[in-house]
Amino acid sequence: MKPIILVIFDGLGDRPIKELGYMTPLEAAVTPDLDKLAELGITGMLHTIERGVRPGSDVAHLALFGYNPKFYYAGRGPYEASGYGIDLMEGDIAFRGNLGTVDDNFIVVDRRAGRIESSDAFAEKINGLEIDGIKVIAKAGLNHRIAVVLRGQGLSEKITDVDPHVVNKPLKKCLAKFDGDDKAKFTAKVVNKLIDKAHMIFKSHPINKERAKKNLPLANCLLLRGAGRMAKYESFQEKYNLRSACIAGAGLYKGIAKIVGMEIIDVEGANGKANTNVVGKINKAIEMVKVYDFVFVHIKATDSLAEDGKALEKRDFITRADKALFPLIPLVEKREIILAVTGDHSTASDLKIHTADELPILIAGFGVRTDRVKSFGERSCQSGGIGHMEGAEDLMDMLINLRGDTKLYGN
Amino acid sequence: MKPIILVIFDGLGDRPIKELGYMTPLEAAVTPDLDKLAELGITGMLHTIERGVRPGSDVAHLALFGYNPKFYYAGRGPYEASGYGIDLMEGDIAFRGNLGTVDDNFIVVDRRAGRIESSDAFAEKINGLEIDGIKVIAKAGLNHRIAVVLRGQGLSEKITDVDPHVVNKPLKKCLAKFDGDDKAKFTAKVVNKLIDKAHMIFKSHPINKERAKKNLPLANCLLLRGAGRMAKYESFQEKYNLRSACIAGAGLYKGIAKIVGMEIIDVEGANGKANTNVVGKINKAIEMVKVYDFVFVHIKATDSLAEDGKALEKRDFITRADKALFPLIPLVEKREIILAVTGDHSTASDLKIHTADELPILIAGFGVRTDRVKSFGERSCQSGGIGHMEGAEDLMDMLINLRGDTKLYGN
Repeated sequence: MKPIILVIFDGLGDRPIKELGYMTPLEAAVTPDLDKLAELGITGMLHTIERGVRPGSDVAHLALFGYNPKFYYAGRGPYEASGYGIDLMEGDIAFRGNLGTVDDNFIVVDRRAGRIESSDAFAEKINGLEIDGIKVIAKAGLNHRIAVVLRGQGLSEKITDVDPHVVNKPLKKCLAKFDGDDKAKFTAKVVNKLIDKAHMIFKSHPINKERAKKNLPLANCLLLRGAGRMAKYESFQEKYNLRSACIAGAGLYKGIAKIVGMEIIDVEGANGKANTNVVGKINKAIEMVKVYDFVFVHIKATDSLAEDGKALEKRDFITRADKALFPLIPLVEKREIILAVTGDHSTASDLKIHTADELPILIAGFGVRTDRVKSFGERSCQSGGIGHMEGAEDLMDMLINLRGDTKLYGN
Repeated sequence: MKPIILVIFDGLGDRPIKELGYMTPLEAAVTPDLDKLAELGITGMLHTIERGVRPGSDVAHLALFGYNPKFYYAGRGPYEASGYGIDLMEGDIAFRGNLGTVDDNFIVVDRRAGRIESSDAFAEKINGLEIDGIKVIAKAGLNHRIAVVLRGQGLSEKITDVDPHVVNKPLKKCLAKFDGDDKAKFTAKVVNKLIDKAHMIFKSHPINKERAKKNLPLANCLLLRGAGRMAKYESFQEKYNLRSACIAGAGLYKGIAKIVGMEIIDVEGANGKANTNVVGKINKAIEMVKVYDFVFVHIKATDSLAEDGKALEKRDFITRADKALFPLIPLVEKREIILAVTGDHSTASDLKIHTADELPILIAGFGVRTDRVKSFGERSCQSGGIGHMEGAEDLMDMLINLRGDTKLYGN
């Protein structure tokens, strides 16, 4: 059966932008390769969730992978923690976190502890703690970043953030979001004890003594946010009969991929930024389909640039990324792969936010019926043969169907 | 009110096929009449169930007739048994079956008892048996085929097949599919007793004594498969206020049609095969709409040829069937009928399986707004005025609406 390559440009869709003569960055970019792939394939428009729903990247990727966020999504924490390398279990409550700096009155004066070089030595100190029968798992990410997982009975993700999200505000007490929710109350109590304990441990840490001497902000506080409960996931192997791999720079996407059982493949220079090694990622994907049935390639910069309001840079990044797709064309022409290219949501460069605007999608290669669309863009794909996909959850089923490996419903 | 003719080409949709210059069989066929009907009507694309779902013919036809398979479908047996002429009641458990040959160790050595001329004499012997308070109804089909129905209290369809589906394997014990399912356990016990009883009765049957003399495989075993529970169906008359009729060659389709209250109309030479009398079927449909409000015409060969990998024969069959549709054109032009032409699912000639690929659909005649599409095919209908129908269950409502006989929602 033919292998599948799914290329996701994060925040690909955009709006007509004044500086681009009211073209979108994708329309304004020079994309002979995407256009050729659109010509060779079938195109359409995609709402990752549904019309008018503005998705986060976590929710959007769950949908793209066929895991209905209604049933699977309960907060961002687990995907971040998984991306940091923590193996999660069903029912775990996971958090994103920072090492931060509080003053003597517990006012947060720096949310990143001066972007401290590493959190490793701090994560180690709280990893393995037990509080009221709940196990604490902690792992450092880049710089000030730290993921925390609570494991045990009777936990809930329906609790508030400790992180005040702005400086010069006091550290917040963790609270149950709803009255009478005993599990959430218990979880909040554990979190507050953990925050206190971490403060006690961190403030006397040798690294902080060094930092005090150098007049650097102390890493004396654990700022947790984004509590999420880990759901039970069937793996790609179980769900789709696919040996799957992920090529991504940013942690969140690796985290989601790992949770659904993808192998994480590292590519040098794949950093989730505008100078990422797109050529290397695509070439690695082409290499990997000899071994894997499904390769997910994630490209982040389209989203980050739009969130920074950089429409022209987004256009230029797409122009550059387009060239990297060139080696996919002969594989599509020979019908040796099934290729899908789309985004996880639109990001409007003028508003600097994710939007619910539709995304263009193209599917090309083995078994694909073509349409008349010959360029890849927000407007050209409106008349594509796929029509409008309401929810990305069908996408995986459509790709498996092209392979010819879908279970029969009925007889 | 105007009568409706629904023509279903089984497995009509297909994929771009190399030997056809990457056209589909429908696109490659010469279809001036289908094209004319597309021009006179409105077209679109249809997923019988939903995007990415690969339907069996049974499930697909339930959807086309407006009976959501989620609520109605519980195994194939009832449609087969109905097709054999058994009148089913809600709650009946029905099976497809063969007369087979087992050796002394109950190894299945022939799944069709040498394609014995008739099962009548055997079906009669077990028809009317009672086992643990459950009534057995059996009826012969063509050759080795036999349908069996269990009627009584406390039965379940969630049981495994007795038929091993391949030769040189032992006859299987019928088992409950899930632990702790007492109804299924009871049903399995009844099935196993029936299989034993049938073996005892059949092996001493005079026909088998004759067959033994001629050295023919003995019809000494009842191979059951596809257990299904009969749901409660509103008839077409009750549901749609339609006097309805079915013109089909193959048993399954007659069976489903009968269950939803259609009259089965026989046409000479309508045999469900590539040499079927399509002209006779269409002419009979035109005759029948003088008496019936709704006539369903089923044409099987498009599916069978694709399942055999015969893309060119599928193309040629479509070319031939197209000519048979010619007499419908003046009725459509005079808006005397409402005509819908589509399939129940796609069947890919290269993969030789049903696929979840969309189907083209055309609706023409009384009350129909036209679109710009002037040819009937998988690609041309992508830009049709219906757009993409997500699930066939709307089709009947759309056709009734054209008649002007739909119930008002609201006031």
